[in-house]
Amino acid sequence: MSEQIYVGVDLGGTAIKVGIVDAAGNLVQTYEGPTEVPKGPEAVIDNIEKYVRHIVEESPYDWSQVAGVGTGVAGFTNVKEGVIVLAPNVGFKDVPIRSILEERLGKPIKIDNDANVAALGEAWSGAGKGIDHCVCYTLGTGVGGGIIIGGRIVQGFSGLAGELGHMAVIPDLEAIQCGCGKMGCLETVSSATGIIRMANDAVERGDRTSLSLLESGITAKDVIDAAKSGDEVAIRIVSRAAFYLGKSMAAVAVSLNPERFIIGGGVSKAGEFLFEQIRETFLKLTPEPVTRGVSIVAAELGNDAGMIGAAGLFLRS
Amino acid sequence: MSEQIYVGVDLGGTAIKVGIVDAAGNLVQTYEGPTEVPKGPEAVIDNIEKYVRHIVEESPYDWSQVAGVGTGVAGFTNVKEGVIVLAPNVGFKDVPIRSILEERLGKPIKIDNDANVAALGEAWSGAGKGIDHCVCYTLGTGVGGGIIIGGRIVQGFSGLAGELGHMAVIPDLEAIQCGCGKMGCLETVSSATGIIRMANDAVERGDRTSLSLLESGITAKDVIDAAKSGDEVAIRIVSRAAFYLGKSMAAVAVSLNPERFIIGGGVSKAGEFLFEQIRETFLKLTPEPVTRGVSIVAAELGNDAGMIGAAGLFLRS
Repeated sequence: MSEQIYVGVDLGGTAIKVGIVDAAGNLVQTYEGPTEVPKGPEAVIDNIEKYVRHIVEESPYDWSQVAGVGTGVAGFTNVKEGVIVLAPNVGFKDVPIRSILEERLGKPIKIDNDANVAALGEAWSGAGKGIDHCVCYTLGTGVGGGIIIGGRIVQGFSGLAGELGHMAVIPDLEAIQCGCGKMGCLETVSSATGIIRMANDAVERGDRTSLSLLESGITAKDVIDAAKSGDEVAIRIVSRAAFYLGKSMAAVAVSLNPERFIIGGGVSKAGEFLFEQIRETFLKLTPEPVTRGVSIVAAELGNDAGMIGAAGLFLRS
Repeated sequence: MSEQIYVGVDLGGTAIKVGIVDAAGNLVQTYEGPTEVPKGPEAVIDNIEKYVRHIVEESPYDWSQVAGVGTGVAGFTNVKEGVIVLAPNVGFKDVPIRSILEERLGKPIKIDNDANVAALGEAWSGAGKGIDHCVCYTLGTGVGGGIIIGGRIVQGFSGLAGELGHMAVIPDLEAIQCGCGKMGCLETVSSATGIIRMANDAVERGDRTSLSLLESGITAKDVIDAAKSGDEVAIRIVSRAAFYLGKSMAAVAVSLNPERFIIGGGVSKAGEFLFEQIRETFLKLTPEPVTRGVSIVAAELGNDAGMIGAAGLFLRS
């Protein structure tokens, strides 16, 4: 029997990335084309089909070897029904993507949201390789999460498991309202957006910081760089982001007892500076037996996690 | 083929309860005998064997119909190896109960800790019947937890999942040290022990409360009864216990998106007075989509949950 391969699709607002993934979780070939959101959902779906067919044609594999096509997208997905419920970045609302692509491609289709597929990719083939129980955080505009137990994504009763960015961990007196409507969510502090907000607040308050000298808007990278250079205000901001990540991990640890926490996304590039403080808080707040053998590490796959995890939906769900 | 049955054993410090459970999760017969801890582990194991054989002999079933014997015990268990690592109530330390009982009874044996088997019992045959994703809290001397996903107990990487009583949810300024060594654990407030402590503190402080008139030591039931009678200090104490339960459920909900939270144990007898406040906090702290369709209810099986869940280890793990 010839080798089976999977195509993973990372459906983003700007680009659609497609990758051929083998049964061992190796990304063997990639292709990227524009999403073309302004042309509407029909055109976006045409592009997915085109890019998937294209990458297989350009590869050493035959179309008959494609065992399935998985897709990850930022937004709300109904995994069971194969429907993208709401994905503002790509202009999709209630798009039954599975049935559409199954008809067009003649292959089994699976979907999930971007945080879950990235977590699955890392768990399968990245920083969680060989680990059965891991929990991933993606620190970007928001804080995404994905929980892997027994090598599989935990979906929850209505598909909303892993929304770790919305854990209410900030004390009342310091809490601000999150985009979700609640007060004190993790992502109000530990996302790029949260870091930028805290930096702008510090500058407006007149705190002494090199960030006040920046001419254009402050980015999360600016804050991280300033912290690494010893700017005390920036250090305080990054420490705060780290503290609440560690606190949320303590809550996850006593619930699920994972072996590894994996942190990806732009903010995770702060590196050991961030990770050491996360670990310190985690150890401080978690009962010792639940910390034993537990590691907190950086994601390894970067932007490839989405493609690999999307393909992994066939082998690990 | 004749019907298969399971024997569930609830191994407690005072009594060993054994029950015959059918494949549908019905407890069809029970028997209870003394544990006799002072006589030592050998004698306790003799008693388990004796009571299991006895209940089957007294039943309409034949020994050949027993498909397995499950045991739940308060303490640390190594589920994979079938070892009771530490169970102070019954005087067990590193007892390889599975191999011992398999040899004596000639039946497959499974074990787990009391909180997990109680959760499984409720999920299978009690307040979680028909629900795939549920999370149980047992409010007793401590706060026990058990997480059921897809109908099965989540064990975690080292068997410590579901330790919900050790989630650090109490704000720093109000936190006290928990028996586990950490500050601010849920069970310092929401267990019977926590409620009694808060009541004694209030009496010592001279707060105006009917609890100060009690002649013997204050029990959690005294506090709950006083709260129901309108005692404001007692109401504040029970509200605080409820608030942090709701807060911990919010953290669990964004992680796992369960359909139902089930609360058992002595303190849960406070009834709607407690439950309404838990629900209020849960709704306040959890993003609305994650609350949709979620219920917070009382456990239904009482002390039978342990026997039923222990038997359920064979069908649901």
